[in-house]
Amino acid sequence: MGMPDPFESAPENTRTEIMQAAYDALREHGYSGLTMDRIDEQFPKSKSLIYQHYDGKDDLLVGLLAFLLERFEASVPEEATDDPEGQLREMLNHAIPTAPEPERTEFERAMTELRAQAAHDDAYREQFTRTDQFFHDRMAMVVRQGIASGVFREVDPDRAASFLMSVIHGTVNRQITTTDDDIGQTVQEELDAYIEHRLLAGDE
Amino acid sequence: MGMPDPFESAPENTRTEIMQAAYDALREHGYSGLTMDRIDEQFPKSKSLIYQHYDGKDDLLVGLLAFLLERFEASVPEEATDDPEGQLREMLNHAIPTAPEPERTEFERAMTELRAQAAHDDAYREQFTRTDQFFHDRMAMVVRQGIASGVFREVDPDRAASFLMSVIHGTVNRQITTTDDDIGQTVQEELDAYIEHRLLAGDE
Repeated sequence: MGMPDPFESAPENTRTEIMQAAYDALREHGYSGLTMDRIDEQFPKSKSLIYQHYDGKDDLLVGLLAFLLERFEASVPEEATDDPEGQLREMLNHAIPTAPEPERTEFERAMTELRAQAAHDDAYREQFTRTDQFFHDRMAMVVRQGIASGVFREVDPDRAASFLMSVIHGTVNRQITTTDDDIGQTVQEELDAYIEHRLLAGDE
Repeated sequence: MGMPDPFESAPENTRTEIMQAAYDALREHGYSGLTMDRIDEQFPKSKSLIYQHYDGKDDLLVGLLAFLLERFEASVPEEATDDPEGQLREMLNHAIPTAPEPERTEFERAMTELRAQAAHDDAYREQFTRTDQFFHDRMAMVVRQGIASGVFREVDPDRAASFLMSVIHGTVNRQITTTDDDIGQTVQEELDAYIEHRLLAGDE
């Protein structure tokens, strides 16, 4: 799941400028090459301002993660739909790009590296748990609407949503960590078959 | 997908001992806390031996990754089956543990962190591409056997295998990077439904 540019609007304040600098440094150097000096190189103001806002690199990066995930969540439209199947397909198409823009790939790379920190860091794990739950709930809601309107079978919406979250997350992670360029397209095709055979009521 | 203990047999030689030390240090300190000194702390012999075998931390970790993935691949049984459905379910059950042992969780944590390096490092990306392809081919072979024996519908084996690889990888990664303990069980249940509605020929 991706947001092409989390900094679409001009930086409004120092915190946003620090976040922009950290994001740029992360994209350029990767997590393992990230230092406060490299974040400072991307920051137009005095380095002391960074230390006024954050205790150090770890604190700053957890802040960056929270910032990115909040903007990412805010970018998802909220309204109910009278076309649950169409909305589900749109969510999946958006979440699994078949030919991602470079900005999207950079965003997913940064997210992959930040997410791996959750293996040994509870602060990261809490953030990703919350964000996964947010997208899970959105997905389950659409499945629920589809069942209510008779388009989908009476599946367990939370189970279907968790399954789809794994498909999405696994596919995007594989796109970032392998050289196989067809993954997005291939998985989208089998996802279509899942929707048709498993979710759509018309199949019975 | 996991291998509980890649060092089951006693270390046979210095290279294996270095690999064991690096793996122990990675599990204990995580990727971002990993240093040559910490690897040396786990190594019973002279530190100079490590530098005789590896140019530095990066070289050593790419070596560790290759070593782990080779053992991991070697642990998968090879023979053909006369029960493709049972074998597919067994592969999926093994790949997605519902109540993982601590050793398995440690292995998956280490893999999650190493895999994230592939976002910015081609050497890692090549390793994971090769390993994913290995497991993909195993999975596609079982699906192909199921189609040949009439148990499965005439699906595209490579498409189904790629889809299942995403489900597995996404689920295990979510298990490692969130606090949601039910993911494995929930996804397994929906995977059953996928097999029943999408793969099994008897459903038509």
